[in-house]
Amino acid sequence: MIAINSERLLQDLRELRSFGACGSGVVRESFTAVDMESRHWLLDKLQAAGLVAMIDGMGNVIGRAPDCSRAVLIGSHTDTQPAGGWLDGAMGVIYGLEIARAGREQHGAAFPVDVASWMDEEGRFLTCLGSRSFCGLLDPAELDAAVSPDGQSLLDARSAAGLAGRPCARLDVARQIGYLEGHIEQGPVLESLAKVIGVVTSIVGGAAFHVVLSGQQNHAGTTPMHLRQDAGMACIELAHAIHVLFQAIAGPDSVWTIGNVRFLPGAVNTIAGRSEFYLEFRDPQQAMIERFIGRLREVIRSFGETARVRVEIAPLGNPIAPAAMDERLQTLIGAAASRHAPNRWISMPSGAGHDAAMFAELIPTGMLFVPSVAGVSHAFEENTSDEDIARGCQVMAEAAAAFLQAAH
Amino acid sequence: MIAINSERLLQDLRELRSFGACGSGVVRESFTAVDMESRHWLLDKLQAAGLVAMIDGMGNVIGRAPDCSRAVLIGSHTDTQPAGGWLDGAMGVIYGLEIARAGREQHGAAFPVDVASWMDEEGRFLTCLGSRSFCGLLDPAELDAAVSPDGQSLLDARSAAGLAGRPCARLDVARQIGYLEGHIEQGPVLESLAKVIGVVTSIVGGAAFHVVLSGQQNHAGTTPMHLRQDAGMACIELAHAIHVLFQAIAGPDSVWTIGNVRFLPGAVNTIAGRSEFYLEFRDPQQAMIERFIGRLREVIRSFGETARVRVEIAPLGNPIAPAAMDERLQTLIGAAASRHAPNRWISMPSGAGHDAAMFAELIPTGMLFVPSVAGVSHAFEENTSDEDIARGCQVMAEAAAAFLQAAH
Repeated sequence: MIAINSERLLQDLRELRSFGACGSGVVRESFTAVDMESRHWLLDKLQAAGLVAMIDGMGNVIGRAPDCSRAVLIGSHTDTQPAGGWLDGAMGVIYGLEIARAGREQHGAAFPVDVASWMDEEGRFLTCLGSRSFCGLLDPAELDAAVSPDGQSLLDARSAAGLAGRPCARLDVARQIGYLEGHIEQGPVLESLAKVIGVVTSIVGGAAFHVVLSGQQNHAGTTPMHLRQDAGMACIELAHAIHVLFQAIAGPDSVWTIGNVRFLPGAVNTIAGRSEFYLEFRDPQQAMIERFIGRLREVIRSFGETARVRVEIAPLGNPIAPAAMDERLQTLIGAAASRHAPNRWISMPSGAGHDAAMFAELIPTGMLFVPSVAGVSHAFEENTSDEDIARGCQVMAEAAAAFLQAAH
Repeated sequence: MIAINSERLLQDLRELRSFGACGSGVVRESFTAVDMESRHWLLDKLQAAGLVAMIDGMGNVIGRAPDCSRAVLIGSHTDTQPAGGWLDGAMGVIYGLEIARAGREQHGAAFPVDVASWMDEEGRFLTCLGSRSFCGLLDPAELDAAVSPDGQSLLDARSAAGLAGRPCARLDVARQIGYLEGHIEQGPVLESLAKVIGVVTSIVGGAAFHVVLSGQQNHAGTTPMHLRQDAGMACIELAHAIHVLFQAIAGPDSVWTIGNVRFLPGAVNTIAGRSEFYLEFRDPQQAMIERFIGRLREVIRSFGETARVRVEIAPLGNPIAPAAMDERLQTLIGAAASRHAPNRWISMPSGAGHDAAMFAELIPTGMLFVPSVAGVSHAFEENTSDEDIARGCQVMAEAAAAFLQAAH
């Protein structure tokens, strides 16, 4: 048995919130002074919990259980969005702290938990920088090229944070036999179904594209319909065709979004000479992502053959593969959820990316979600009830206990 | 018989072009110093041609044939778009000058032509300001409220141009027994059909609307399709539905344009919480415009009932009624066109608005078009061949002669 201390958990979480607090939100971007302060605070907390802790060359805070050769690793990130909420990432890190602490208090060396706060999950420089570094998934050329939106190089940011020259920690698959991450859902599914725990089946993959249509700008009154090369109307027709296609072939967890459209010159009485839109889609199944990409290219090719405008499509970065969660860990988290929230938990994919995706190919990896109030995240209003936060931590602690027990 | 002097016509047109010349284009916005200079130049030209000329309180330049009680009025405008071409408006004014001048030279008082350059057809302050003033179609409240895009009031502009306090000329239906206007087509129809004269049947009317859709901004990864209130996707679906509807009910000369669309916040990975688009449509038939408006409101109402977003529609100004051209004048212009361009003229509606529309309800009104190279207008590249310019003037002169002869 393991029982987390929910008062202590919430107290630590509120203390962490004070670093970069801004109204109900938190501004604690990676590598900033306040981010580094919070990492030193966490370092002290981990040491006080009896772990051997350090901050590595990438800013990852890592605490290791002493006197053990194998441990379960529990973590998330403490950096935030430019205008972020208080729980995105932070909750999962404090879950790790509390489970390691409660485990040592109640079981000593028989409950070995390592804890991590990964650097820059939010991608001020590189999305999941810290966990990718830890998992050996970084290309040095990416590091050299990484620049923040305000023009700082990653190299300068690491120097300014006092991290240059420090060694970077690496995953030891012989020691770290599993990875667990707790996170707020950042979406409305749990709340809409009145559920309180989500057992993550897979972290979705996906792809994003930029589509540009080139026609002929012209007078909206004097150009007959049959002589138009209307990049605006073509944009609407193509975007609609893509929507209809995706509706027809989508899986149950597919999502697709056209988040921006622009017409040029964008005047009421002028036929658009150029238009563009951005399309992204996500799915837990790699085969579905490949199907979307293939059919998208087909529909754009056939549209381009009949339309009076030129259509170009360019990918935004490489497609991201979905990361399946370990089935045994899903079972263990589900079993604990059944005890603490019978009939109030579900299995669900994660629509957002997480550090856990980096570990999925390397060691058994599991994630659990707690509800986001109104589905809101990446905003100051982001919140979860204290009860839901505490329940999620207890469920994860029990899953970790069962996992460690089976490993002996 | 009347024969215009095409060398003199083109020479005057080139001289007028020098006022505000900017590369191949012209920048001569209404009420500016260079616009007023060009109006004084035209005043001198009209007087030299033997007309009694004046600049009225609205900046209209009006030349009246002396020694006659009835005349045909020929005109257009000499103000340009902010980055305009050399022929839009200017050509029709110089047609009037040359026809009045050649008529007086060849027939004296037996060829009475009044000539006008209307102020601000391009609507820096109010579209067709000068011709509306002349036709008694202005509401004084409009005058008080009129402001240019750069913030100058019409009152100040009139004062700065030395026009405050001057009397405004008015149409005298006993004297001005008909109105003729020559204009570049500003569209691609004549060129695409290898025609050189267009006899205008009607100046189209139309309406414009602003449509706003309000949904819920959300994370593009974590919000399942069935829980979205996606204002972006709804915008694409509604715009597409309107396009399909209009295609189904359109007349042969209907045009409709969605010239601008915006999504907010407009990020690749965020579901749009708000979107908007502008729709305008034009038709030579009033019944068709009313049908478009009625069916548009229906489709938006029914879309709003089933969509998960709120839809609002607001008109941009009042609908503009189409203006039918006088059938007898159409016949006379067509007969002259048959002599100078057999099989190379057509009857066609005007998709753009013109000063002539103000006169159509008051006196017999006719318009002719000459081709625009590549259909381009409202741009520095606007052009028409010298041959086409001269032919159009000769055709109009003969139509005016026949009209005047029939009136005796």
